[in-house]
Amino acid sequence: MSRIRRDPTADRWVIVAPERADRPMLYGPPGAATAACPFCPGNEHLTPPEVLAWGRPSPAPDTPGWRGRVVPNRYPALGPEAPVGADPVGPGLFLERPGHGGHEVVIETPEHRWRPEAIDAGALTDTLAVCAERMKVWSARPGIRYVLLFKNHGEAAGATIPHPHFQLLALPLVPRTVREEAAAAARHRRREGTCLLCRLLEAERADGARWILETGALVAMAPYASRVPYEVWLLPRSHESRFEDSPVLGETAEALGGLLAALARVLGDVAWNLVVHTAPPEGDAEASSYHWHVELLPRTVRFAGFEWGSGLAMNPVAPEAAARALRDRLRS
Amino acid sequence: MSRIRRDPTADRWVIVAPERADRPMLYGPPGAATAACPFCPGNEHLTPPEVLAWGRPSPAPDTPGWRGRVVPNRYPALGPEAPVGADPVGPGLFLERPGHGGHEVVIETPEHRWRPEAIDAGALTDTLAVCAERMKVWSARPGIRYVLLFKNHGEAAGATIPHPHFQLLALPLVPRTVREEAAAAARHRRREGTCLLCRLLEAERADGARWILETGALVAMAPYASRVPYEVWLLPRSHESRFEDSPVLGETAEALGGLLAALARVLGDVAWNLVVHTAPPEGDAEASSYHWHVELLPRTVRFAGFEWGSGLAMNPVAPEAAARALRDRLRS
Repeated sequence: MSRIRRDPTADRWVIVAPERADRPMLYGPPGAATAACPFCPGNEHLTPPEVLAWGRPSPAPDTPGWRGRVVPNRYPALGPEAPVGADPVGPGLFLERPGHGGHEVVIETPEHRWRPEAIDAGALTDTLAVCAERMKVWSARPGIRYVLLFKNHGEAAGATIPHPHFQLLALPLVPRTVREEAAAAARHRRREGTCLLCRLLEAERADGARWILETGALVAMAPYASRVPYEVWLLPRSHESRFEDSPVLGETAEALGGLLAALARVLGDVAWNLVVHTAPPEGDAEASSYHWHVELLPRTVRFAGFEWGSGLAMNPVAPEAAARALRDRLRS
Repeated sequence: MSRIRRDPTADRWVIVAPERADRPMLYGPPGAATAACPFCPGNEHLTPPEVLAWGRPSPAPDTPGWRGRVVPNRYPALGPEAPVGADPVGPGLFLERPGHGGHEVVIETPEHRWRPEAIDAGALTDTLAVCAERMKVWSARPGIRYVLLFKNHGEAAGATIPHPHFQLLALPLVPRTVREEAAAAARHRRREGTCLLCRLLEAERADGARWILETGALVAMAPYASRVPYEVWLLPRSHESRFEDSPVLGETAEALGGLLAALARVLGDVAWNLVVHTAPPEGDAEASSYHWHVELLPRTVRFAGFEWGSGLAMNPVAPEAAARALRDRLRS
């Protein structure tokens, strides 16, 4: 069972999950056989029994014919077997809590290989809708304080299985990044009476230099303090706190597909992480002032000693240059 | 010139340094020619004019014969040309400050290739002593609020040049990681009257499971909440705030050599980052309660969407198992 430990020298929690050391690395030379891929049709027995599937004509679970599948992660970072809601305990400086939570995989497509030029917005819409449903299911469970949805694409982004999939991690705590964003949003609202990200969108539209895309309901921009080259944020134009409650997931899928295709035109077969930032489940003031957004983080540079030592990021590409390049390649 | 930008949605600063995009990547197949290596003897003209060198019989700067050299980074993240001490400015939500500071490279040895089995503790002592001197020089300069010393080894650790070198970055702000550690240390001292890390060392010695090495003046341990597999902290047994003022740099070099050799025996030719955590230059209460330490972070796993989205780390190797493996291989 995994444990969540607090670093006594800093406000930092770490999930220690030895089970995950056994994960196989399934990246190989391009075109390598996918016989061993647990996410390919026909290999359903290689995953734990499925939570749900969509698009399968037959009612038999764990059989081929699906368009998408949700399965428990076989090497979970957190598990439901740990005591619910246990407080951190420990002798003296050593505080840890059981790794209570959930870790699911949302397999997006039967196709093993992801090709940016062939993104199917309809399929991605279905995937996002299923992800949103699973987020709501997990949020309602006892002991869960946050549900993190993310996707790793490519070895350099930490992916171990190339077959397209999202991951959902249900956590017994609100992670630091979200806590800090929620606190900044609540602070801004108390002071200015407005949503920080709504205000930021106005300022970014007026400036224009980091603006990438605008659709009916969504905006994409290179954030002012982009941590990595070609970082992109995609967010709703009007205020919405929770991704999982959003009425514009179809438009989100379409915009995301366009952005990923543009990214591939600019950077080639680049690795990236995608992270959904949504408000914490609890209905407090901080949650309602939170504005959900998707962060897309290409991995062209590596974190080094500077970043470890400082907590600062070092970005060798100006966000304005990144936005210009992505804008130029969105329609070509 | 680089800029340091504040993310308006979080307490996060980013150095945007487009000059660094031009850095050449000098890793190649093992045994590749080093003709292009700017840190090899004979190639002194490939670096900016040296700040100092040691071990060279001739008085002529930028010529071979040295045992070590300090040069300005040719692709600096921060530079002295920016206005000193300028406050962050910007319209509305957009705050940035000029990238004022310094970025130096300390070339440790004329040898291009680093071999863990041939670490020379004497040479490393000289290097650390020079690094400490440069830290003091930069700390005394106007507008500098922190000096970060670090080393990247291997491509996976973000190094672009294999030739062994340290980097020193003089910053116009105290980086977040150090601020947080200093605050935790000051809080502990106010509450308990002792140094947090001195207290932690007592607890770790009593526990023993994460203890790796003990010398006359130093201790190495796997931190309780290790963020990555085989993370190691090396620190003085008695309270010292500043690495650059330490009387035990020779012993530090020797212990570090032993640890790096043990790490190579356990993990093979692994990439790692080494970061020196020292108290901020300013002489406040937080600085004196700070206990310097060296953090050694092997890079066997990649940061992925989970880490980006949460600010938590996920470590698949228990620190106790890592400490045991390193202890076992220290003397063999």
